[in-house]
Amino acid sequence: MNINSNRIFALENSKGILALENNNRKDGLRTGGADVARVSRLSRASGCRGRSIYMDKIRAGIVGYGNIGRGVEKAIGQNPDFELVAILTRRPPGTLSSGMQASGMHDSGSQATNNSTAAILHVSDAPSLKGKVDVMILCGGSATDLPEQGPQFAASFNTVDSYDTHAKIPDYYRAMDAASRSAGLISVISAGWDPGLFSLNRALAAAVLPHGSGCTFWGKGVSQGHSDAIRRVDGVEAAIQYTIPIATAIEKARKGEGGALATRDKHLRECFVVAKEGADKAAIETSIKTMPYYFAEYDTIVHFIGKDEFNANHTGMAHGGFVVHSGKTVSGRHTIEYSLDLNNNAEFTASTLVAYARAACRYQREGRSGALTVLDIPVTYLSATPDETLRKDLL
Amino acid sequence: MNINSNRIFALENSKGILALENNNRKDGLRTGGADVARVSRLSRASGCRGRSIYMDKIRAGIVGYGNIGRGVEKAIGQNPDFELVAILTRRPPGTLSSGMQASGMHDSGSQATNNSTAAILHVSDAPSLKGKVDVMILCGGSATDLPEQGPQFAASFNTVDSYDTHAKIPDYYRAMDAASRSAGLISVISAGWDPGLFSLNRALAAAVLPHGSGCTFWGKGVSQGHSDAIRRVDGVEAAIQYTIPIATAIEKARKGEGGALATRDKHLRECFVVAKEGADKAAIETSIKTMPYYFAEYDTIVHFIGKDEFNANHTGMAHGGFVVHSGKTVSGRHTIEYSLDLNNNAEFTASTLVAYARAACRYQREGRSGALTVLDIPVTYLSATPDETLRKDLL
Repeated sequence: MNINSNRIFALENSKGILALENNNRKDGLRTGGADVARVSRLSRASGCRGRSIYMDKIRAGIVGYGNIGRGVEKAIGQNPDFELVAILTRRPPGTLSSGMQASGMHDSGSQATNNSTAAILHVSDAPSLKGKVDVMILCGGSATDLPEQGPQFAASFNTVDSYDTHAKIPDYYRAMDAASRSAGLISVISAGWDPGLFSLNRALAAAVLPHGSGCTFWGKGVSQGHSDAIRRVDGVEAAIQYTIPIATAIEKARKGEGGALATRDKHLRECFVVAKEGADKAAIETSIKTMPYYFAEYDTIVHFIGKDEFNANHTGMAHGGFVVHSGKTVSGRHTIEYSLDLNNNAEFTASTLVAYARAACRYQREGRSGALTVLDIPVTYLSATPDETLRKDLL
Repeated sequence: MNINSNRIFALENSKGILALENNNRKDGLRTGGADVARVSRLSRASGCRGRSIYMDKIRAGIVGYGNIGRGVEKAIGQNPDFELVAILTRRPPGTLSSGMQASGMHDSGSQATNNSTAAILHVSDAPSLKGKVDVMILCGGSATDLPEQGPQFAASFNTVDSYDTHAKIPDYYRAMDAASRSAGLISVISAGWDPGLFSLNRALAAAVLPHGSGCTFWGKGVSQGHSDAIRRVDGVEAAIQYTIPIATAIEKARKGEGGALATRDKHLRECFVVAKEGADKAAIETSIKTMPYYFAEYDTIVHFIGKDEFNANHTGMAHGGFVVHSGKTVSGRHTIEYSLDLNNNAEFTASTLVAYARAACRYQREGRSGALTVLDIPVTYLSATPDETLRKDLL
């Protein structure tokens, strides 16, 4: 580690930042000739000409160190304008070590380029980080963690989270907006993929084709919430639930007939369950299939399998889905589709959170405050690439 | 037409607009009891409670009355918060009548809900519209019309356009930014579907999965530019060109191997040509296949057909395509895909322009000025639906 690991090297001109690259360990603080060489290398790589500056990295904290939290740690390693300062957990911090430190991942090449010198602290130590962390990435669950932690952290830090209890979003928004607004800070809520990227595409499609109807399908993939619900059934040792979109429903949605589909028409729920020894399998199956909200409204298939088969074939975190919007203009019908095929749900959600964490910091630096959602934030705020380069290369 | 056709009825509370509906001909200006009935009807329909207000509609003008211009006229009919004030053309205005007026489309039910009382004027009359039009939707071509008309109109009106010469976007942006900034107005450039919605999704995917690569495919669909190029070949009476994406290339892009694909690997160009009597078909075919930039870099198939077959089967405007981005997090690969299947390219582009025209007016009302692209504009600015309703229903 060197004195510049918390800064990033960039080219700028009078219009703003043109290109940037990580200020990595081998480089150190250069002056004179060395900087000239670096400017010329980055100019060649980016096709932009400008003068060199060293910018501060975004100092991030992670709150909650489960699948999403570990994913955020990895995602920060892929975004050289970020620096991970601290990981906060409710467990005794001494019992944890950061995944990146433990696996040496930060030294293994291009996948992870940051130095991990993050402190692992108890959540109650959060006040000591005030002024040292630019954005807290909240990785707790939506049922009990975020309703409590969200407003608490939003009163002292910029925050981003993937709050996903759709029905309670307006309440959560109000609580987060009040907390962050009175602190002069920004909170970005519900910024995973659904709610999140899917929401953005639902609203975009509806704005472009107002005479139309949208439909969202999830899967085929593992629903963590439904798998957890099965695991709470008496006699269940292990379980996983796959959400499967129904092909005929997808075709209807593409033709603009998605509005008439019932919940049962759109998705099938397939469960693989390991029963405890001597458990009543018929009773387990009935408990699952009749579980209100989670399964009762769906056609549900339950398979009982052995522990070995479960461990061999059913521990992945693949997920995905798609948003279909079909709408009419005066003389034509059009279909807009946005789809995600995710190998690792938690890591993808984490990557999305990091992009929106960048936006939270930029908004706050501009003097704005309050809660924002993915619908309020333009793409330029999510990207580490300078606006001028985005216009040139991706517009 | 009645005195309120340029206003729109809305419910609002202290947080802003909650719901809105067209103030249509049958209603007129109501007071007391009638307004109460209307508030209660809209409250029921929207699920929102608030007090009633009448808002000014967005007064739009169309510049250029080809396929896109006619599409914008129709799209305005589908967006009750817009009013079409004028259509500007370079042809003698007396020779044109508005499509909606001619077909009586505005009276034909739910597809078109605005009154069309738009004036048809010569482009040279534009100065007379200053202060009477909130946004000019520029529907001219990118080759010669927009480079000239764009900065001219941007100096007097908010504008939106679908400028699509990718390589020259930075120059066009600078010209439009200078013109609209010094006038204290907003210009939104390149806001069709590519550049436009595709650009937005390219940049969004790259921000979320920075360790990845994106690839854009067009078609199967009609390229207006390539069809025009063929029609300029000696001996050609009529022609259409279909752009066809190549399946093996799509599969490679989904696996993250899109970066290695050459232009020829990604798309095929299929042309249907009606030759003039006595024309040298072999010479036409060679001229097409060797045409630099348009065809030389592609595998091109040329079919000669009769005029009847052409008219029967090859006059549609279907198009579409998709943006594929495949990227890696530390332990998984993920694919993001955005696709459009368009029955009528011009009408869909027009619908997109109207959504961005709404954004241009909102930005200017907030006191901002200068050029913007789709990358700078959040979804809330595109939608006529109030932010609170979007959060509740689509987030």
